[in-house]
Amino acid sequence: MMTAKTAAIIVIGNEILSGKIPERNAGYLLPELHKLGVAVRRMIVIPDEVEEISRAVRECASQFDYVFTSGGVGPTHDDLTVAGVGRAFNRPVVRNEALAALIRELFGRQADEARLRLADVPEGAHLVASEGIRWPVLAVENVYIFPGVPEILRSKFDAIRERFRSAPFRNASVLTQEDEFDLAPGLRHLAEANPEVEVGSYPTFACEEYRVRITLQSGTPTAVDAALAQLLKMLDPQRLVRVE
Amino acid sequence: MMTAKTAAIIVIGNEILSGKIPERNAGYLLPELHKLGVAVRRMIVIPDEVEEISRAVRECASQFDYVFTSGGVGPTHDDLTVAGVGRAFNRPVVRNEALAALIRELFGRQADEARLRLADVPEGAHLVASEGIRWPVLAVENVYIFPGVPEILRSKFDAIRERFRSAPFRNASVLTQEDEFDLAPGLRHLAEANPEVEVGSYPTFACEEYRVRITLQSGTPTAVDAALAQLLKMLDPQRLVRVE
Repeated sequence: MMTAKTAAIIVIGNEILSGKIPERNAGYLLPELHKLGVAVRRMIVIPDEVEEISRAVRECASQFDYVFTSGGVGPTHDDLTVAGVGRAFNRPVVRNEALAALIRELFGRQADEARLRLADVPEGAHLVASEGIRWPVLAVENVYIFPGVPEILRSKFDAIRERFRSAPFRNASVLTQEDEFDLAPGLRHLAEANPEVEVGSYPTFACEEYRVRITLQSGTPTAVDAALAQLLKMLDPQRLVRVE
Repeated sequence: MMTAKTAAIIVIGNEILSGKIPERNAGYLLPELHKLGVAVRRMIVIPDEVEEISRAVRECASQFDYVFTSGGVGPTHDDLTVAGVGRAFNRPVVRNEALAALIRELFGRQADEARLRLADVPEGAHLVASEGIRWPVLAVENVYIFPGVPEILRSKFDAIRERFRSAPFRNASVLTQEDEFDLAPGLRHLAEANPEVEVGSYPTFACEEYRVRITLQSGTPTAVDAALAQLLKMLDPQRLVRVE
């Protein structure tokens, strides 16, 4: 099996955990990363607390190729992501002169301490610049720090997305009117016979068109093709709705 | 400060991590639990893997009052939540006779091994029954196991929600046209002076009506009232949009 790049998404924000604001950023990143061929292995929402942020970042950064954080970036007391990432890597937070210069350029005489605080980053952080974004993305080792405002996160991610592109996944989906209980033994056998392929089974109750969606996914396209052929042989053609 | 009950939500599903299906269950539970006075401290999405499920459940069950799982329940090879919860508590998975009887009643002569597998639960699990749901909610210690189909999760959660009711949170929200950078020092002081109150600051860029939403939250209503009075004294009345 081709080994896909792996990732975790860490969303930082009390407002998400209390349900005051619906989560939209992981909701954007998950399908985008999948399209780029990156396998997200964990998505986590945690509170605005340095210790929680630091623990989640340390754990994810050591296990996955990329970590994307969303939220907790800004000038107020509840913006603790930079401090949390710094602590995760045992790096002090220091003023970055390139960012400070950018703030002075943007704000002119208004560039006071509250604004300059945005130039404080974990020591050794790198700035990922790109055309189309005025403000670079902050990265510390394999951790990319994004703000929580959805429009800004999207424009920043879109500006640097190509650096994450990996071998694409091959996906196939089969819709059938058969009952998931009756499919279960065959699907178990199919999954065992095709270890390179992730075989998923999703029953639906709301929709009339099909009863189960069977999904096949792999980094190895030929493995999906082979599993799909086996699956179609196994299914009742009378009750097959379609292959996607 | 009144200590709120705490909770974690664990969503199990490759289809969420790959972005093929948008997350809807935590999106439903988060505001509902907040209304019930339960503080969700973590929400996590993990793959359909026994080891991942078991690790997340063990960690969350020991740290929080309640754990809610969503997904990975059903008859197919990728339905691994029961196995994962069993492993988290070092309990073997055994057939529950009450559930087996229910399956025989529901399916009659169709009650084969694939269907009876739904009666296999971690040893010592309890069945939380309620009017309005045909199938009880499975609970193992403080872990409540819900299926991933959103309509079913909702009806099951709604049927047993009152058992989680705790002291309600008091919330207040102040909208202002002031700039978040200029508010930052005052908000930091406000948060420090009111340790019982969670003070949040959320700038908006898309909306014209206000520039920053300041939120106050606590289990102690009088603490929110006091912090709100201090906040209003601090803000420029000319640029105040409204209090919610």
